[in-house]
Amino acid sequence: MSMHPDEQAEYLTFAGRLADVASAVTLAHFRGVVDVMNKDATRFDPVTVADLEAERAMRELIRSTYPTHGVLGEEEQRITGTDPFFWVLDPIDGTAAFITGLPLWGTLIALNDGQRPALGVMDQPFTRERFSGDGSYAWLNGKPLRVQPCPALSQAKLMCTTPEMFETSEQWDAFQRVASTARMQRYGGDCYGYCMVAAGHIDAVVEAGLETHDVQALIPIVEGAGGIMTSWTGGDPQHGGAVVASGDARVHEEILRLLNAQG
Amino acid sequence: MSMHPDEQAEYLTFAGRLADVASAVTLAHFRGVVDVMNKDATRFDPVTVADLEAERAMRELIRSTYPTHGVLGEEEQRITGTDPFFWVLDPIDGTAAFITGLPLWGTLIALNDGQRPALGVMDQPFTRERFSGDGSYAWLNGKPLRVQPCPALSQAKLMCTTPEMFETSEQWDAFQRVASTARMQRYGGDCYGYCMVAAGHIDAVVEAGLETHDVQALIPIVEGAGGIMTSWTGGDPQHGGAVVASGDARVHEEILRLLNAQG
Repeated sequence: MSMHPDEQAEYLTFAGRLADVASAVTLAHFRGVVDVMNKDATRFDPVTVADLEAERAMRELIRSTYPTHGVLGEEEQRITGTDPFFWVLDPIDGTAAFITGLPLWGTLIALNDGQRPALGVMDQPFTRERFSGDGSYAWLNGKPLRVQPCPALSQAKLMCTTPEMFETSEQWDAFQRVASTARMQRYGGDCYGYCMVAAGHIDAVVEAGLETHDVQALIPIVEGAGGIMTSWTGGDPQHGGAVVASGDARVHEEILRLLNAQG
Repeated sequence: MSMHPDEQAEYLTFAGRLADVASAVTLAHFRGVVDVMNKDATRFDPVTVADLEAERAMRELIRSTYPTHGVLGEEEQRITGTDPFFWVLDPIDGTAAFITGLPLWGTLIALNDGQRPALGVMDQPFTRERFSGDGSYAWLNGKPLRVQPCPALSQAKLMCTTPEMFETSEQWDAFQRVASTARMQRYGGDCYGYCMVAAGHIDAVVEAGLETHDVQALIPIVEGAGGIMTSWTGGDPQHGGAVVASGDARVHEEILRLLNAQG
């Protein structure tokens, strides 16, 4: 299903309104005293009040504006709409960054047309940076973004949120084959790393253990800036899991080859 | 040697002027196309044109304003003044963050009175955040900063720039004893992490392999906010090396004990 340009422009504007209502909540809590609950005691995955309130505010705006659309959010139950379109929301991607005061978290908003994420927004309200994309184009605060050419992984700047995201020793070894070949590897980033690929400052992000809501908004941004985003085996990345995003197809191919090489 | 309050206020204002001249250079290059040279081919330690130009601009302002003061900078030769006072400059702390587009680098400026860093500034011009401290007080953009109480390491949020900074397997094992006890550990941060300790968002930073210019500006900020900063053995941290900064003395003691425990 492809969208008419007018329809797409309308939805992109609406995604901006969703980011506005979310940021009113998140900024009120960022660097304040937040109540942190543990979702899962075995792995530190904090949910803040801000997370819950921001998602609720976005859900209300979707319900009142597009009552036929579905919603898939991090915090609350999935709503299946009568329309194939559904919004994918992550009010605070990068909760670890959020609770440690670092301005690298973001609000992720995607519109999926029933088949794929057609447009996405990553909003960082503290630095006042709004990244958006529609798969063909991408922007930072309205200014076009373009990936940077990079001929080989040995010249590439790599990013990954944390070593803890790799779920098996095979995944870790595969990541290490990539990281040790790259010119440099830096931890930290969450959604911000993917947007730096789109902006041409980083050449690739290699991650694992991601959820649907972690990736959907980022795909139209990375692809819109001319980048590539796939699973580690080269498949559709929209359901999360193990994902690679690259600015240059040559680097992407080399990363996939190393990830899938026999250790 | 202790400074008169008027003299201290004058130097803190001057440190702000140094940050201003540095930021005019660094912001012009941040996220632009930078010429990156490798200082040391074995370890990726990029020096940008911005780094060199920003230090030169600060050195010129010091020379014309306080010709008797010494200067110790990251990029150029040490100048020994006729006065015991010397300025310690790191134009871009966190070059890896700088070249990957992340707003976590900072310009570090300290005034050492001949015995210890008496005042320090960490300036992040992209987010317009200026942290400063004099060992007794600390501020973010003029607003007082205060560390957060934390009764035990098991409740602490820990930060460290990168696993690559640990120089021996003993250092890495010691760090792991601390990180595995903490409530959470996050990589990335550079100077920004220490300022988040001062602001109460992080409970401790544990690092190694630091230079004098990496730490001098941060000590008066962390201590001014009520925190503690020492070497891993509890000694004077002002010459860098292996360093711990904590917001709460109980957490600091526990970290030192674990760092110095027999593996």
